[in-house]
Amino acid sequence: MGVKVDSLLPTILQRRHIARIEGSAVLIHDRRQYPLEERYVRCFSVDEVAQAIRNMVTQGGGPLQVALTTLQFVAREIHGRREADTIRTFVSAANSLAATRPTNTTMARTIRNMVAEIGQWYVCSSVRDLHGGDLVSYVDAIVHRYECQFDADYDTMSDYGAALLGQSEGILTTCFAEHSFLLTLIKARDQGKHLTVYVPETRPYLQGARLTAPALQELGFESYVITDGMGPHFIRNGTITTYLTAADLVAMDGTVVNKIGTLANAIACSYYHIPYYPFAMVPDTTKASQDDIIMENRDGSEVLKFGDTATTLKTLVGAYPAFDIVDADLVTGIITPKGVIEPHSIKAVYLMNNDA
Amino acid sequence: MGVKVDSLLPTILQRRHIARIEGSAVLIHDRRQYPLEERYVRCFSVDEVAQAIRNMVTQGGGPLQVALTTLQFVAREIHGRREADTIRTFVSAANSLAATRPTNTTMARTIRNMVAEIGQWYVCSSVRDLHGGDLVSYVDAIVHRYECQFDADYDTMSDYGAALLGQSEGILTTCFAEHSFLLTLIKARDQGKHLTVYVPETRPYLQGARLTAPALQELGFESYVITDGMGPHFIRNGTITTYLTAADLVAMDGTVVNKIGTLANAIACSYYHIPYYPFAMVPDTTKASQDDIIMENRDGSEVLKFGDTATTLKTLVGAYPAFDIVDADLVTGIITPKGVIEPHSIKAVYLMNNDA
Repeated sequence: MGVKVDSLLPTILQRRHIARIEGSAVLIHDRRQYPLEERYVRCFSVDEVAQAIRNMVTQGGGPLQVALTTLQFVAREIHGRREADTIRTFVSAANSLAATRPTNTTMARTIRNMVAEIGQWYVCSSVRDLHGGDLVSYVDAIVHRYECQFDADYDTMSDYGAALLGQSEGILTTCFAEHSFLLTLIKARDQGKHLTVYVPETRPYLQGARLTAPALQELGFESYVITDGMGPHFIRNGTITTYLTAADLVAMDGTVVNKIGTLANAIACSYYHIPYYPFAMVPDTTKASQDDIIMENRDGSEVLKFGDTATTLKTLVGAYPAFDIVDADLVTGIITPKGVIEPHSIKAVYLMNNDA
Repeated sequence: MGVKVDSLLPTILQRRHIARIEGSAVLIHDRRQYPLEERYVRCFSVDEVAQAIRNMVTQGGGPLQVALTTLQFVAREIHGRREADTIRTFVSAANSLAATRPTNTTMARTIRNMVAEIGQWYVCSSVRDLHGGDLVSYVDAIVHRYECQFDADYDTMSDYGAALLGQSEGILTTCFAEHSFLLTLIKARDQGKHLTVYVPETRPYLQGARLTAPALQELGFESYVITDGMGPHFIRNGTITTYLTAADLVAMDGTVVNKIGTLANAIACSYYHIPYYPFAMVPDTTKASQDDIIMENRDGSEVLKFGDTATTLKTLVGAYPAFDIVDADLVTGIITPKGVIEPHSIKAVYLMNNDA
């Protein structure tokens, strides 16, 4: 492929910054205090990694990158053990990681596919011979191949994204839309387009204020942090011309699931005739419709805090549905590696090609 | 009138809790740290009062109550001075107070009307004789009459509000909708209706989390604090059945101005066919349409903080339009002392009666 997207991205999205193996631990970049504090969480087992993901140490595409690194970590741990144990260890690690975030199913699907590939090590002597009996280098090669494929997909999706943007655009986003979103902006700027970006802070974790806005600043974009209720104000007054987000999940009926707060802006875009494009690597073919989506409800007390600081009385009760379900009718097009797909057509496009 | 609404309300809305004269100062209850800290700002001059209002020490209907108390304070200060000076002092105080919040024009209109009444003291000896030459008791009587009228209006509006609610309702609000809103809930409950209230935290000042939610708890209502992006999620899934807010201003074309964040929920209500009713004492007859509304843009750096604590890098830029403009088409009805008025009819209703 030869696509080098890693070096174009802001530090927070570069692979070795998200997660890496150091000695007998997986290091995970802690996004919870970033950019006010720069620190890593050190995990000495798959269970500790899973707990860190549940604790929101990383988020968005972070858990997937952490999972890949953790499979490499597992290969190093079990190198040389008995056959039956080792594949069981991979399957158990995969299940444990996949269960950490029930709504975003990309990570679960990817690591299960990878474990199926790793299984070939145990059933096929020619695979072992090809890698000189080195399980670590075999798993590393699989992870590297997946990473290259992701980079190629980000590259393609951002080509489509940049092509959608006009000469001068006010971009609204939500949460931290990561690779394809930022590469879209970079490419559009390289094409001479003028962009201003509005970033809702994304309470309670403030991913917009803490991750997206600093990343945009590092990349040199003009951007403004706003509160989560302000998007429709800037859509209404003409400041916003395009709404771009990630998608934690796309169902086969074109329903888009993304960070809570996405729906408010999507409805306002529809009302004021502004296009809304989420980025998605691939739809979840196991979710025929929105009825099949498992929603993550987080602890409501997280809404009553900013970091460790209480925002109000501790006796109050908060509610924290983590994701919004956005009906297909509210989505202009889904930006995928196969092109910009009208949401109601996603099933036809992906099942026809039979490779989702 | 005989309407006793003050004692029904939560502490934060009781008059002597909002503002009072103590010695040579006006004490203003500081809503900025409430309920985490209970404190008063002590102002020794009208200028200090105006500065406190600009600094958001109080908000919503608070500035109006503070302004009434400040006129009583001015009467005490100037009691006995020469005639020309004294009326000039009232006019100057009124102008200074009226200028503190450009978008909500109710306070400006009310205190200018009161100063016109106070002027009768200086032009009419029978007025002075009637009050035994005591300017302080004269101004106190005027303020008391206005307060009684407000209470009667709150009482009427909340009768209309409670009548709109069904036997079981999920109520969404925004910011701190104060008297008529809370009295509506109290009366509906007294009528045997079951209410659950969802309260967006209302960043950056968190009026929802800090003022509305504790007030609802004090009154014994089941309520949940949510982030500002969550309203549409609960509208979409059927949890919310009615949206109720205050209105900082209603223009004669039925446009409603209210705290930023209101528009997102109003559009979602319209999209999912949920009624939206703002409460308004009276429209602003000087604003023929939304084009005449003066919008308050506050310092964008306020979005980058929670209290005094930074949420992200200080080098980022925030934007803070303080209010949303909600088009009349998005409003089901405006709850006023004259009844629940379809927004496009507000001009006809108020100009016909010629008493706005």
